[in-house]
Amino acid sequence: MRDNEKVADLIALEELLQVQFHDRTLLQRAITHHSCCVETAVHDSYDTLEFLGDAIIGAHVVEHIYRTYPNATEGEMTALKSEVVSRRVFARIGQKLGLFPFIRIDLANLRTFNERSRDSLCADVLEAIVGAIHIDQGPEVARDFIARVILPVVEQVSQEADINPKGKLQKVILQRTGNLPRYRVLEQSGRNNDRVFLVGVYEQEHLLGMGRASSIKEAGKLAAKEALEALRRKNG
Amino acid sequence: MRDNEKVADLIALEELLQVQFHDRTLLQRAITHHSCCVETAVHDSYDTLEFLGDAIIGAHVVEHIYRTYPNATEGEMTALKSEVVSRRVFARIGQKLGLFPFIRIDLANLRTFNERSRDSLCADVLEAIVGAIHIDQGPEVARDFIARVILPVVEQVSQEADINPKGKLQKVILQRTGNLPRYRVLEQSGRNNDRVFLVGVYEQEHLLGMGRASSIKEAGKLAAKEALEALRRKNG
Repeated sequence: MRDNEKVADLIALEELLQVQFHDRTLLQRAITHHSCCVETAVHDSYDTLEFLGDAIIGAHVVEHIYRTYPNATEGEMTALKSEVVSRRVFARIGQKLGLFPFIRIDLANLRTFNERSRDSLCADVLEAIVGAIHIDQGPEVARDFIARVILPVVEQVSQEADINPKGKLQKVILQRTGNLPRYRVLEQSGRNNDRVFLVGVYEQEHLLGMGRASSIKEAGKLAAKEALEALRRKNG
Repeated sequence: MRDNEKVADLIALEELLQVQFHDRTLLQRAITHHSCCVETAVHDSYDTLEFLGDAIIGAHVVEHIYRTYPNATEGEMTALKSEVVSRRVFARIGQKLGLFPFIRIDLANLRTFNERSRDSLCADVLEAIVGAIHIDQGPEVARDFIARVILPVVEQVSQEADINPKGKLQKVILQRTGNLPRYRVLEQSGRNNDRVFLVGVYEQEHLLGMGRASSIKEAGKLAAKEALEALRRKNG
């Protein structure tokens, strides 16, 4: 590819990303697979930028989850994070954003290339672009990019995966009544390792759902699920 | 513990951390193990702050590695990161900082408690404190705290683990001569999956070391190791 074509490509990519780079060689690197530069991959391919971007995205996704789902347990947050920060989700975002045509790859240097490789490349390059933005533009621009391009999927994934029933119930109840749902342990039986808790979830004094499990956390989650199902039936 | 004792403790901890909180209940939460608040752990224990702090520390450690070892491969960076962002290292930092006496834990609620639990608590609380600083003080104060308390171990760990010989060699050669070491493929034999590369590392035209492996990366790493050993023998 000639140099002026390369530059035109990078400008088009900047428009897509809504970010103008000070140093376009960083953006160039973020879209370059190591098959294009076997001997100089450490400096010219996206590998280390991808490593950086992955960690930065992780921190922002976790912060977003922490702030958005204040009633989720650490286990629920971890589950949601690992659903979001996944090859599958990043590939979907990268493909939708239209990154693929910009990626520089030397197919002759690769053994196999299929639809999955395509997805995987888009996921890699999305992360590498975040790394490049962070280095070139600083943490605030990177944060804004992540907020615009990646964080919107968190709620989507959280609903798909049915991972956070207590957070979802809170949102629904808050919208309907202005109150927060409350959880109460209604019954506790067994002892030591065989304990069973029955937890109820209430809006004011109105029982919305109940759940039974070996921990209060899990029982509360089941109660919230039951409450959400009951509300769906009522509205459906 | 009476309320004024609690406050005195939190003030002492703030002095230790060199951070003054706007909302001390966040700091209080960061040092509270869920054994102290079984029923209200989601809001009163450090679990979710730890989850947040872990991700934030991860991002800063990765950025620091990226900036400090520009010649490291993604694999070397990943190895160094996982050495640094580990229970063992965080426990060491937390213990050295003197966090243990501040941690609130209800031993009667725990089955076993030993030296390892102590370490593990210090690691948890270090992460939770970073999460609390981030929420209470914003990303810059959190970054400064991490730079002061955690990042100094990166170089230490990198030397302990002998993980990054190319980076180390570069530093040594740059200090001695103002030049960067250069790597050259001297020989290439075999084919396809049985390739073997011989790589030499040079300061100007002076051969410092050689390494042989099935990838250029790995051969370069071995060459750097050999060079470092030769320099040590020369100086020892």
